Amino acid sequence: MPERRKVCVVVASRANYARIKTVLAAVKEHPDLELQVVAGASTLLERFGNAVDVMALDGFSPDAMVRFIIEGENPTTMAKSTGLALLELPTVFELLQPDIVVTVADRFETIATAIAAAYMNIPVAHTQGGEVSGSIDESVRHAVTKLAHLHFPATELSARRVIAMGEDPEHVFNVGCPSIDLVASTDVGLPRDVLQHFGGTGATIDPDRPFVLVMQHPVTTEYGHGLDQINETLEAVSAVGMQALVFWPNVDAGSEHLSKGLRLFREEGRADGFHFFRNLPPEDFIKLMAHCACMVGNSSAALREGAFIGTPAVSIGTRQFGRESGSNVVFVDYDKAAIADAIREQSARGHYERDTLFGDGSAGVKIAEVLASARPEIQKHLHLDLGTRVGGGVARSES
Amino acid sequence: MPERRKVCVVVASRANYARIKTVLAAVKEHPDLELQVVAGASTLLERFGNAVDVMALDGFSPDAMVRFIIEGENPTTMAKSTGLALLELPTVFELLQPDIVVTVADRFETIATAIAAAYMNIPVAHTQGGEVSGSIDESVRHAVTKLAHLHFPATELSARRVIAMGEDPEHVFNVGCPSIDLVASTDVGLPRDVLQHFGGTGATIDPDRPFVLVMQHPVTTEYGHGLDQINETLEAVSAVGMQALVFWPNVDAGSEHLSKGLRLFREEGRADGFHFFRNLPPEDFIKLMAHCACMVGNSSAALREGAFIGTPAVSIGTRQFGRESGSNVVFVDYDKAAIADAIREQSARGHYERDTLFGDGSAGVKIAEVLASARPEIQKHLHLDLGTRVGGGVARSES
Amino acid sequence: MPERRKVCVVVASRANYARIKTVLAAVKEHPDLELQVVAGASTLLERFGNAVDVMALDGFSPDAMVRFIIEGENPTTMAKSTGLALLELPTVFELLQPDIVVTVADRFETIATAIAAAYMNIPVAHTQGGEVSGSIDESVRHAVTKLAHLHFPATELSARRVIAMGEDPEHVFNVGCPSIDLVASTDVGLPRDVLQHFGGTGATIDPDRPFVLVMQHPVTTEYGHGLDQINETLEAVSAVGMQALVFWPNVDAGSEHLSKGLRLFREEGRADGFHFFRNLPPEDFIKLMAHCACMVGNSSAALREGAFIGTPAVSIGTRQFGRESGSNVVFVDYDKAAIADAIREQSARGHYERDTLFGDGSAGVKIAEVLASARPEIQKHLHLDLGTRVGGGVARSES
Amino acid sequence: MPERRKVCVVVASRANYARIKTVLAAVKEHPDLELQVVAGASTLLERFGNAVDVMALDGFSPDAMVRFIIEGENPTTMAKSTGLALLELPTVFELLQPDIVVTVADRFETIATAIAAAYMNIPVAHTQGGEVSGSIDESVRHAVTKLAHLHFPATELSARRVIAMGEDPEHVFNVGCPSIDLVASTDVGLPRDVLQHFGGTGATIDPDRPFVLVMQHPVTTEYGHGLDQINETLEAVSAVGMQALVFWPNVDAGSEHLSKGLRLFREEGRADGFHFFRNLPPEDFIKLMAHCACMVGNSSAALREGAFIGTPAVSIGTRQFGRESGSNVVFVDYDKAAIADAIREQSARGHYERDTLFGDGSAGVKIAEVLASARPEIQKHLHLDLGTRVGGGVARSES
Repeated sequence: MPERRKVCVVVASRANYARIKTVLAAVKEHPDLELQVVAGASTLLERFGNAVDVMALDGFSPDAMVRFIIEGENPTTMAKSTGLALLELPTVFELLQPDIVVTVADRFETIATAIAAAYMNIPVAHTQGGEVSGSIDESVRHAVTKLAHLHFPATELSARRVIAMGEDPEHVFNVGCPSIDLVASTDVGLPRDVLQHFGGTGATIDPDRPFVLVMQHPVTTEYGHGLDQINETLEAVSAVGMQALVFWPNVDAGSEHLSKGLRLFREEGRADGFHFFRNLPPEDFIKLMAHCACMVGNSSAALREGAFIGTPAVSIGTRQFGRESGSNVVFVDYDKAAIADAIREQSARGHYERDTLFGDGSAGVKIAEVLASARPEIQKHLHLDLGTRVGGGVARSES
Repeated sequence: MPERRKVCVVVASRANYARIKTVLAAVKEHPDLELQVVAGASTLLERFGNAVDVMALDGFSPDAMVRFIIEGENPTTMAKSTGLALLELPTVFELLQPDIVVTVADRFETIATAIAAAYMNIPVAHTQGGEVSGSIDESVRHAVTKLAHLHFPATELSARRVIAMGEDPEHVFNVGCPSIDLVASTDVGLPRDVLQHFGGTGATIDPDRPFVLVMQHPVTTEYGHGLDQINETLEAVSAVGMQALVFWPNVDAGSEHLSKGLRLFREEGRADGFHFFRNLPPEDFIKLMAHCACMVGNSSAALREGAFIGTPAVSIGTRQFGRESGSNVVFVDYDKAAIADAIREQSARGHYERDTLFGDGSAGVKIAEVLASARPEIQKHLHLDLGTRVGGGVARSES
Repeated sequence: MPERRKVCVVVASRANYARIKTVLAAVKEHPDLELQVVAGASTLLERFGNAVDVMALDGFSPDAMVRFIIEGENPTTMAKSTGLALLELPTVFELLQPDIVVTVADRFETIATAIAAAYMNIPVAHTQGGEVSGSIDESVRHAVTKLAHLHFPATELSARRVIAMGEDPEHVFNVGCPSIDLVASTDVGLPRDVLQHFGGTGATIDPDRPFVLVMQHPVTTEYGHGLDQINETLEAVSAVGMQALVFWPNVDAGSEHLSKGLRLFREEGRADGFHFFRNLPPEDFIKLMAHCACMVGNSSAALREGAFIGTPAVSIGTRQFGRESGSNVVFVDYDKAAIADAIREQSARGHYERDTLFGDGSAGVKIAEVLASARPEIQKHLHLDLGTRVGGGVARSES
Repeated sequence: MPERRKVCVVVASRANYARIKTVLAAVKEHPDLELQVVAGASTLLERFGNAVDVMALDGFSPDAMVRFIIEGENPTTMAKSTGLALLELPTVFELLQPDIVVTVADRFETIATAIAAAYMNIPVAHTQGGEVSGSIDESVRHAVTKLAHLHFPATELSARRVIAMGEDPEHVFNVGCPSIDLVASTDVGLPRDVLQHFGGTGATIDPDRPFVLVMQHPVTTEYGHGLDQINETLEAVSAVGMQALVFWPNVDAGSEHLSKGLRLFREEGRADGFHFFRNLPPEDFIKLMAHCACMVGNSSAALREGAFIGTPAVSIGTRQFGRESGSNVVFVDYDKAAIADAIREQSARGHYERDTLFGDGSAGVKIAEVLASARPEIQKHLHLDLGTRVGGGVARSES
C-alpha cells in the first residue's frame, strides 16, 4: 500500500475554521490522504473564544499548536506576529513533514504559512485566491497566490483573476468556497434553539423579536479610525432599536480601537438590548445568519455565506470594497444615518433567494480530491503571454 | 520648508548593494529626500565579506543593523530567517519612521521588508519586479510585486508583466536597473590594476593571462543537489584549464553544499589556478566582469550587468531560467562537458557589444525623482479588466 | 568635558515603573549620567493601562519601545515572551549603546534584560535582589542576581542574602527601595480628590465610606488554580460588604484565569460596589493605599509600600511567601472565610505606624550616585569562602 | 503499570554531548524513565561537525531539532540566539510534554533551556553547577543553578558551592561528571588507530611522532581580543615544532576572530604540521587526549576529562580561571613564550596519574536513578540561614 499523502492545514482564526472545516473533514476521510491540523494564533486565545476547543469537539484535535500573536493590535505588532508565525511554522513543518500545506484566505497567518512552506519546498494550496477587498488583506491575498502551487478560488471570476495574474490554469480549481458546504448542510432550526445555549454577556435576546447581527473588524489600512468607525455603526444600530448580537472584532491591527468602542458604548449604558459574543461554533453562526433580520458590519461572511443563506446585509466602509456579492448586500459608508437607513430597509425587505455565487456545497470533497491527485512542480513559472524579446537568451516562461 | 521625505532602503546582501547603490546616492543628494539605510543579513557577516564596511566607506553608514540569519542554510532556516527579519524590521521601522521603504529584487530579506512595511502602512517601492527566473526567488519576486505600491522594473517586458499581474500602470516605472548605472560610470581600468589589491585565498592570478569568473549560488527548489551541481562546474572549469576567480555562494538554502564542493575541490588539490573570494566592492566586481574571458555559473549579474558590459557568459541550470538576457549569455545544463564546451566557445568569441536591455545608466536618479513625487494610496486595488458579475454588490476594482 | 555615562533603564510594567521612577528622575538630573528609557511589554498595552503614557507625562518618553508579549498568558507564552524580549533588547542596546543597564525586580522582562546586557558585556544593575517570595519570580530574582554586576537590594536582610549567594560585598548597596521614595514624597490628599478623576468601570465609589483595595496576580507555579483563588477573594470581599476597588491582574501566566473570575463575578451580578481598574499613575495608587481600609490580594505593594504607609493588608496565598514585611500585613490561605475575617480585623484595626523596613525615601538619588561612580569588572567572580582543594590548578575565585 | 517519567535532555553542542551522553544511555535503559532528546544549536550545523549525526549513530536520534543560532558570533547575536532558543524550546516542550528537563553546564543554550522549563513549571535538572570559571559562562552557570530544581554538580566543592548559594541540600547530588563515565569506559587503543580515520584538513599526522591537541574557544568577556589570543597560541605551538591537531572554536561570541586567526595562519603558510578538525565523536576525542603529548588552549576538557586521563595540559588565559583542576594542568597567560615553555615542559613530563576529582565513572547511572525517584516541588525556596527580621509578616524561607 502506498503511503498516504500528508495534508497539513493551518487554522488560525474562527473565521478560518468556518471556511476550511469541510476540507478538514474531506481530507480526513479520503483514503489516500492523512490530515494534519495546526492550530494557531487566535484559535488558542480565550478572548477570541478558544476556537481550538470547538475544533477538538468536531474531531480535529491539533497535531501542533503555534502561539504567535504579539499583543498590541497595531500595525507594528501585526507585522511582528507574521514574523513570529514564520519562526514557529518551520519548526512544526519539520516535525510533521507534510506533503502539502493548505492555507486559507488572506490573513497574516496565511502569508506566514505560505512563505514557510514555499521556502521549505512544500507545495502550497490556497483557498479564496482572486477575490478583491480592502484592508491589507487585499495585497496579502494576491501575494499568497503568487506563492501557491494549487489554487482553490471560490468563484468563477476569482479563478479568472488568479489565471490573469500569471498562474498556470491547470492548477486553478474553481470549486466554490468550503464555507458554503457548511451552510448547505446545516439545519438552521428555530431562533429559540439557537439563542438559548449561547454564552456571552449583556442583554438577553428574545427569540420572538427580530435581531441584527453586528460584526465589524478593523481595516488595517485605515488604522487609527476604528473607534469612530465602530461608533457610527453602534449608534446606527441603537437608533434602529432592534435587539443586537454583537461580536468582538478579530485580532488585526486596530482591534483594540473597536473593542474600546464596544466597551465604552456598554459602560456608558448605551448598549441596551445588545448581547456580546467572543466566538461561536461555525454552525451556530450560520444559524444566526439564517434568523437575523439583518447583518451589519464589514465581515466577508455577509457576502459569502450571506449570498447562499440570503441574509439581508449592510456592508460598511472599505473592507469588502470590490468583493463580489449577491444581491443581498447593500454597501454604505461609515455614516450612522446611512447605516441606520440601510438596516431598516434591509430588515423590512426580508431574506433573499439563495445565490450560489460562492459555491453549491461541494467544495470540501472536490478540494480533497485535487489534493490527492495533483502533483504540482515545486518550481513555479509565470504564465503570461506577452511576447518576448528574442536575444541570445530565452524567456521560456511565457508559454 | 516642508520636511524631507524619509526613504528607508533595506540592504541585505552584497548583490543587493550593487543593485541599489546608485539609488542610495541619488536619494542622499535629492533635496526633498532624506536617506535611511538599514543593513541586514549577510552584509553584516564576515564570511560574506562584511559588505557593511564597503557601504560605510562609500558614505552609507547604516542607521540600523538587523541581524537575522539563522545558521543552517537549509530550507527550514531560510524560512525562519525570513521570520526573524520580520520580527526585527518593524522595531527598526518604528524607530526610524520612514515615509517609504525600498526593497530590492527577490530575496527572503526582500519579502520580509515588503511585508513589514505593508502591514505598517508604509508604502513599499520595489526594484526588479516582473523578471522571471528559477529558484524560490521566482515566487517571492512576484509576491513582493503584489505587496508593493511603487514598481521599478528594470526592463520594458518586466514592466509589462508587472502591469499584467494587476498593478496600476501609473505606479509602474520602467527606469532600468540601478546596477547598470554603476557599470556605466565605472572606469574598468586594466586587469593588472584590478587584480593586484584583492584579498581572498588560493592561487595568484596572472593578469596577463585569461581568467574565468565563477559565481554559482544554490537553487533552493533543487535543494540537496548543490554538491553535484557545483562539481560539474568546477570540473568543467578545471578541464578548460584557464585561471579562475571563484566566489563563495550566497546565504540561500543549500549554500553549505556548494561551499563544501569548493572546499573539497581545494582540499583534494584539484583547484590549481583557482583563487577564492568572499566579497568585493561592486565596482571591483564590474572590473572583473569587464576583463574576464568568460563568466560561469548562475548569477543574474551575467545577464544583467553582463548585457551592458558584453561579458561572454555561461549560465548553468535553472536559476536564471526564463530571465531576459542579451546575446552574451549561453545557457547550459548541469553537465561538465557542456559547460566546458560553452566556456571554450564563449572565451574564444570575446566580448559582446553593449546591450542596454537592463538600462542605460540613469535608473538611480529616476527612481529618486519618483520617490520624491509619487504619493501612492496605501490601500492597493487590483487592476485587471475581466468584466464582472453584476449583482447587488459591486466589483469596483476592475476598472 | 568627559562624556556622560549612559544609563539605560528597561521599564516593563506599571509595577516596574512605580519601583524605578525616582531612579529615572535621579539619573536624569545627575550631571555625569545620561538617561535612556526603554518601555516594554505591558507598559505599551491598552489593557494594562498604557503605562507608557503616564511615563511620558512624567517626562520619561521612551528612547525605544519593545513589544514582546505573546498572547496566551500561560506558561508556554510566558517562556516565549521572555525569548522574544531577548530577541528585541539586543537590537535596542546595539542602537542605544548604553554603558550600564538597570533591570527591576524579578519578572520575565527582568531576566531577559539581564541576560541581554550580560551577554553583550554591558554591566547590569539590579534592584530588589535578595528578597524571597513565591511564584517563579523567586527563582528568577536570584538568577538575575547571579547575572548582575551591581546590586541594589531594598532591605538589610536582602543585602545579606545577596552576599551570601556569592556576590562581591563591594557591589552590594543597601539603599532601600525607590518605590518608598515615591511614597515619601507623595501628598496623599483626601479620598475625595483621589477618587473623583479615576477611569475604570463598575460602581461609583463613595469617598466618605470605607473601601478595600483588591490586587491579586496569578501565581505561575500554581497555574490552573487562579480561577478558584480569585473566587475565594471576591467572595470574601463581597461577604465583608465594603466598597472595593479591584485591579485587573498583571500579564503573568494564569492572568486570564483571574480575569475570567473578575468578568464572571461581574456578569453574574455579584460585583455590587466593585469598581474595576486597569492602571493608575503610581502616585494615585499610593493615595489609594493611604486611604483604603484594607488592601487585599497578593501584591508585594502591600508589604513594600504598605510598610511605609501603614496600610492594613491581607496577603493571600503563596505569592508573597517568605517576603519580609512590617506588622501591617496578615497572611492567610486561599480561603474565603479566613480572608473575610482578616479583612474585617484589619479594617477595624486602622492604619499602622510607619515602618522604614523597605527604605526611607532616598533610594533613587543613592542609586544614581552609585551608577555614576561604580566601575564593576565585566567578568564576574563567585565570592564564597569554602576553602578549596589544592592541586596543580588553582581555585582563585574563593577569596 | 505506571507511566514512565519523561526525561527530556537538550543537547546543544559537541561538548554538551560528551558531558551528557552516559546520562542519555542510562535514562534510555532505566525501566521507569522515557528518554526524549532535543538536538539544538551547533549540533545541527555542518561547520561544527553535525554532532547530531554522531548522536544518531549512537542511538540517540532527536525527538525534535531546534535551530536557533543567529549568525554573527558577536555579543549581540549571542544574546539574540538565547532569545531565539527561548522561543523555540517552549514549542517543543509543549509537544513533548516532558516531566523533567535536563540542561547541561553553562552555555546560552543551557540558560534558555532552564528558563523555558522553569516558566513552564517543568522541573529542571542541571549538571556542572557550582564550578567557577571565566567568560560569561561563570554568571550563566550560577544563574541556572538558581533556576534548577535538581543539581548534579561534578565535584564535592561544587556541591558545597551550590548549597552555599541557597539551594536545598536534599536536591544536590554530587555524582561526578558524566563525561568521566565515558572516559572510564573508552578503550583508548593505539595512536595509529585513532588517527587513521579522521576527517579534517591540513597536514597528515604521523602517529609515531608526538603531537599536541589545540582547542581554544573565545572568551566572551574579552570580546575583540580573540585574534591576538589565538595568535599567541599558534605561534607558541609553531615554535615548539610538534605536530598539532587543531580544533575550530565553538560558536560563542568572538568565534569568528579565532577562526580568522586559524585561517590566516594557514593561508600564510605558517601551519606546517597542523591538522584542522571540526568535530569528533566524544570517544575519539578522548583517545586523542590519551595519546597527545600535551593539550593546549582553554577547553575545560583539559581540566575535567584531563584529570582522569592524566593528559598534560596548558590552560591559557582566563576562561578556566578558578575552575578546580588536577595536577595535570599548568595555567599560563596569553603569551607565546610562556605558552611554548609550558608546552615543552608538560610534553617532556609525560602523562599524569589518574585523578578522580571530577568523578569515577558512575555519574550517568546515578543521575538516572535520581531522575527516576526525586520529586522536587516546582516552587523553589531559598535555603539560607541568616536569621530574619521578625514582624507582622514572616520570612519563612530561612529554615
